[in-house]
Amino acid sequence: MTATPFSSRSVLAQQVRAQARAGTLQGHTAGLAPDLVQGNLMILPAEHASDFLLFCQRNPKPCPILGVSAPGEVAFPQLGVNIDIRTDVPRYRVWTDGHMTQECDDVRDVWRDDLVSFVIGCSFSFEQALLDAGVPLRHVAQGRNVAMYRTQVPTTPAGRFHGPLVVSMRPMKAQDAIRAVQITSRFPSVHGAPVHLGDPALIGIRDLSQPDYGDAVEVMADEIPVFWACGVTPQAVVQAAGLPFCITHAPGAMLVTDLANASLASL
Amino acid sequence: MTATPFSSRSVLAQQVRAQARAGTLQGHTAGLAPDLVQGNLMILPAEHASDFLLFCQRNPKPCPILGVSAPGEVAFPQLGVNIDIRTDVPRYRVWTDGHMTQECDDVRDVWRDDLVSFVIGCSFSFEQALLDAGVPLRHVAQGRNVAMYRTQVPTTPAGRFHGPLVVSMRPMKAQDAIRAVQITSRFPSVHGAPVHLGDPALIGIRDLSQPDYGDAVEVMADEIPVFWACGVTPQAVVQAAGLPFCITHAPGAMLVTDLANASLASL
Repeated sequence: MTATPFSSRSVLAQQVRAQARAGTLQGHTAGLAPDLVQGNLMILPAEHASDFLLFCQRNPKPCPILGVSAPGEVAFPQLGVNIDIRTDVPRYRVWTDGHMTQECDDVRDVWRDDLVSFVIGCSFSFEQALLDAGVPLRHVAQGRNVAMYRTQVPTTPAGRFHGPLVVSMRPMKAQDAIRAVQITSRFPSVHGAPVHLGDPALIGIRDLSQPDYGDAVEVMADEIPVFWACGVTPQAVVQAAGLPFCITHAPGAMLVTDLANASLASL
Repeated sequence: MTATPFSSRSVLAQQVRAQARAGTLQGHTAGLAPDLVQGNLMILPAEHASDFLLFCQRNPKPCPILGVSAPGEVAFPQLGVNIDIRTDVPRYRVWTDGHMTQECDDVRDVWRDDLVSFVIGCSFSFEQALLDAGVPLRHVAQGRNVAMYRTQVPTTPAGRFHGPLVVSMRPMKAQDAIRAVQITSRFPSVHGAPVHLGDPALIGIRDLSQPDYGDAVEVMADEIPVFWACGVTPQAVVQAAGLPFCITHAPGAMLVTDLANASLASL
């Protein structure tokens, strides 16, 4: 493991994780420790881990990997001080044969020594960069979850993992959309540049008012919908693969890391 | 004057300029010396030069300055070896009181010691970068001039110089439009990132099939029009200002410099 530049504010991340560990935080992490990187969580048995790693390698825009643990390892020293991946996420989902069978705030009782944890970049990081640059985000202003859609764009399969790309959509004025391409291009490890903008039908989305995940937001007449690859993609793919067992975070209840968002900027 | 990194292929530029000087090249320069920077030319009496310089400073996207001469100076050592700005552009236009009064291949007979030359970046440089990256350009493929439009977006005035922004339009698939934002953002000295994309009416363009300059190109159903600030803007502004005297290049017949396009990349 190489040394990672933890943020000077990483004590904030440790406080959030301590609350999650104590069970006093069981909900969303949006807006908590806004300068710090938050991650999607996917925990799989080791026998599926190499295929999943390959899937992420082949689909870096929806599945940008921030860290992978050794089998059974519960610490994540490259992502933060004193992480216990079994307790430090506010809310987990346990999946059996592709179905969610449990939602809980601690997975110590179902932990196994063959489990490999993947932490995958999350759009919270680039949203903070957009807001810092003065690009308004309607779903944030309205306190909603971002609108997400299954597309007809296929991911590149690996082993049993395959399925459509899931995208998130943010409506923007054209000038903000151009600025957003510039800003998010700097953050390839949290989905990077948009994958599409303009006509939703071109990527197989029929109706923007009917998202497959999250909440719909209005697109004004002087706005264009801008679409980013979404971290729900790997969850949907693993779900569709019907693995006998896996664990994820619950939507919006992310792992808060000690990394600064700014440390992810590629330039 | 500081040393400028002239391209190893600058001999090609010198050949093009020698042909222009000899009168054997009197037409377009598109595609000649494709790796080298070409520039728009604006030659004004010194009494208007400081206002025009201020106008360019206030409107850097349509008016990115590559070089400004001293009054009366005909060489341009920062842009190339042995340039004579009076002869080395294939075709000039002479303007009197805002009207074109002469088109010629040499302006030595109308030269004055109070004339200041401005060379302004041209989209040929970023078009080459787009083509190199595999982004198709329909007007290039069809051998047409790019479509240009007067918008209802005002420039920031300076002295007697004011008027609407002129833009060029290139139709692209969404993925290419996103890639084009990334690529052209690297080239602020040749217009940089787009100024608009999507609905033309939002910037006051009524009908894409009726460009104000250049040739119309079709926008396919799976494409989005992408608009860049255009070097015709300063010409239109100077024309509208009705200066008693000025000289420009003829459209498409640019000054070919010794600078490599790649040398303009900001990162």
